[in-house]
Amino acid sequence: MRAVDVIMKKRDGGALSREEIDFFVAGVTNGTLPEYQASALLMAILLRGMTAAETASLTDAMVHSGVRVDLRDIPGIKVDKHSTGGVGDKTSLILAPVAAACGVPVPMMSGRGLGHTGGTLDKLEAIPGFRVNLTLDEMKAALTRTGCAMIGQTAQIAPADKKLYALRDVTGTVESIPLISASIMSKKIAEGIDALVLDVKTGSGAFMKTEADSRRLAESLVSIGNASGVKTEAVITAMDAPLGRAVGNALEVVECIEVLKGGGPPDLVDVSIGLAARMLVLGRVADDLADAEKRARNAITSGAGLERFRRIVEGQGGDSRVVDDYSRLPHVAEHRVVPAGRGGYVTKLDAQLVGRASVALGAGRDRVEDPVDPAVGITIKAKPGDEVRAGDPVLELHYRDRARLEAALALAAAAITIGDRRPPAARLIVGEVRE
Amino acid sequence: MRAVDVIMKKRDGGALSREEIDFFVAGVTNGTLPEYQASALLMAILLRGMTAAETASLTDAMVHSGVRVDLRDIPGIKVDKHSTGGVGDKTSLILAPVAAACGVPVPMMSGRGLGHTGGTLDKLEAIPGFRVNLTLDEMKAALTRTGCAMIGQTAQIAPADKKLYALRDVTGTVESIPLISASIMSKKIAEGIDALVLDVKTGSGAFMKTEADSRRLAESLVSIGNASGVKTEAVITAMDAPLGRAVGNALEVVECIEVLKGGGPPDLVDVSIGLAARMLVLGRVADDLADAEKRARNAITSGAGLERFRRIVEGQGGDSRVVDDYSRLPHVAEHRVVPAGRGGYVTKLDAQLVGRASVALGAGRDRVEDPVDPAVGITIKAKPGDEVRAGDPVLELHYRDRARLEAALALAAAAITIGDRRPPAARLIVGEVRE
Repeated sequence: MRAVDVIMKKRDGGALSREEIDFFVAGVTNGTLPEYQASALLMAILLRGMTAAETASLTDAMVHSGVRVDLRDIPGIKVDKHSTGGVGDKTSLILAPVAAACGVPVPMMSGRGLGHTGGTLDKLEAIPGFRVNLTLDEMKAALTRTGCAMIGQTAQIAPADKKLYALRDVTGTVESIPLISASIMSKKIAEGIDALVLDVKTGSGAFMKTEADSRRLAESLVSIGNASGVKTEAVITAMDAPLGRAVGNALEVVECIEVLKGGGPPDLVDVSIGLAARMLVLGRVADDLADAEKRARNAITSGAGLERFRRIVEGQGGDSRVVDDYSRLPHVAEHRVVPAGRGGYVTKLDAQLVGRASVALGAGRDRVEDPVDPAVGITIKAKPGDEVRAGDPVLELHYRDRARLEAALALAAAAITIGDRRPPAARLIVGEVRE
Repeated sequence: MRAVDVIMKKRDGGALSREEIDFFVAGVTNGTLPEYQASALLMAILLRGMTAAETASLTDAMVHSGVRVDLRDIPGIKVDKHSTGGVGDKTSLILAPVAAACGVPVPMMSGRGLGHTGGTLDKLEAIPGFRVNLTLDEMKAALTRTGCAMIGQTAQIAPADKKLYALRDVTGTVESIPLISASIMSKKIAEGIDALVLDVKTGSGAFMKTEADSRRLAESLVSIGNASGVKTEAVITAMDAPLGRAVGNALEVVECIEVLKGGGPPDLVDVSIGLAARMLVLGRVADDLADAEKRARNAITSGAGLERFRRIVEGQGGDSRVVDDYSRLPHVAEHRVVPAGRGGYVTKLDAQLVGRASVALGAGRDRVEDPVDPAVGITIKAKPGDEVRAGDPVLELHYRDRARLEAALALAAAAITIGDRRPPAARLIVGEVRE
């Protein structure tokens, strides 16, 4: 098989065979396919698309580029949740302990923040001592011990994805539903789960800006998961404004602990409970969604979720005293308020710009190799729909570096829109996709 | 400027600016742009296209990646001819001495055969001693001495093209009119000519299979040439069947000498004279096309063209005695006839398959680095329109290696179609494009 023939076939709109896709993925994984051929094929895929069968083959080939973890020794239906990425999107730290407390084993393999979106690993690492780089054996031990393991992608899991993603990132070939689907699902399938809840974000702060695109992505993901024997459902949730009131790693950890203590912003609580409830149904510890929601909320009211969170943190080497003493988390003394320029209602708080402001402060990264500052971030003082007077604080920027602050202030100010009328309440859960 | 932004702009259908194109070409030339980014951009260009302005900018940037030869010291209007490539397409060896004999200086920079098509350099090198790798100074001296220089592309001429072509060849990004146009015209503009006649082939054995595609390419080439100050015209000629009766390097040299002696196949004579005549008009040594054709034919009748060919060969180190003694050219003793399977008329002689059969014998190459055998090739015994009886020879294969013969025989047999009725006479010159 010649790589150039495979490239030309896709370039001319053909559907690649399983053998051609295997040849491509194996070549990328073991380095025998030159990157210039891989990137030409990626661009052809982006512009010509892939059928559902091709996307399934691509995903499967990527799964088989590494190991598919075997978790059958661990009793119960293992369920994970994956989000396509948002701003202030911190539901994992809430729903993982809640679902585990309700009896669902949660082997969660997460990523880091990139661009304007945050990542679960960065948030967890804001907790002093927390280790996300567990081996597969340590992951199984954690899962057995606390019913939950929250770790990063190991080198054994879909190594083809790591190479492909690095190449896509620098060749303008990220924005392709088949490539995104195969990237997400290959890692999820390889981690050995039985079921998966997907949180597909939609809106200005999401990767997919329109509901139609988000639905297409959700359908692609659900189809691949179920075809691979992972019972998969997707929830499409709004990401026009940040979720909750905290953006930035340690700030978000505090907010999650608040939710687990029974407080926290209602939008964050509702999305977290909604996703956790679906995990309980898929994990067969609840009869239906209503029963599951009740169980999830009970896990918060009873303190079982918070207790489970504490055990997970301890189990992975973290300082669980942060739960009672937020001053043990990294924090900065300096903050600056971005006030409302006029009176009225906050009609829009652009998630992407808030995310970019947070990156400007140092909370996120533009390149995978950049470090993040766990202490800095943004607190949202007025959410869309809130009434403000001129000068009232809308955003509060927690900063370390004054030069970074200036850039962040400009972005933060641009994120705020104030109008004369209260905007209609935004839907949080926009839709769902099941098989 | 970030390469990924340029790639994404083209991917999304945008038109690249002059600066963006310069960035791309400079990066390819000096190696600062990774090949994986260059190939992703090439694929995006192939699938999204380029405007006339973008193609002109690309060509100009490629010209300026090297030197633009200055031939102003040499009197006269310097005219070259370029063909997009065919099978048995040997007109250069005829029209260059004819045009030079008529007073038009011909600085001709040619290429080698690739795939099923032949190349002028390979044909010239079939003449013992013939040197095609002249320096630019030697080229100028030859031009002054004999009115003609027939050489290969030097490293100073459009180095970006060499790198881009090598990348396009292995990434499925050859078949793009803007990329083909910029590749051809950058080299032609850089060689310092005043005018150019393009022979754009059309048909099954051509790069462009349809007349519409060939016309689009011709229009693109003519537009770029004239915009760069090179007076450019294109003739669209048929390439469904091989041109003339010889395919293979030494065999084609013999056929060209026959034409210069006043013989040779009429189709080859007519196309060569037609192209030479346009060179005479552009070179202002003839008043109009009719006058030019008369002068070109006279150059053959008078023997001036043959005499000039002899001097060109001598001037570039070749053995000019081949003109009178074909046995001085490489040749093989073995030959095998491919007969007509039935009686009737040859209705089709597929140029691409004849070309592939010739490559199978060793006369051409599939990869740039492959050597060619100057002696082997194919003689066409019956052309489309000829009547044959069952068993009459249609093709004669001159071979060195029996294993290669077997592959060539299968391809050669597949190239022949015999029907009951004489096919209509095919047009040789299908159209022309001027500014």
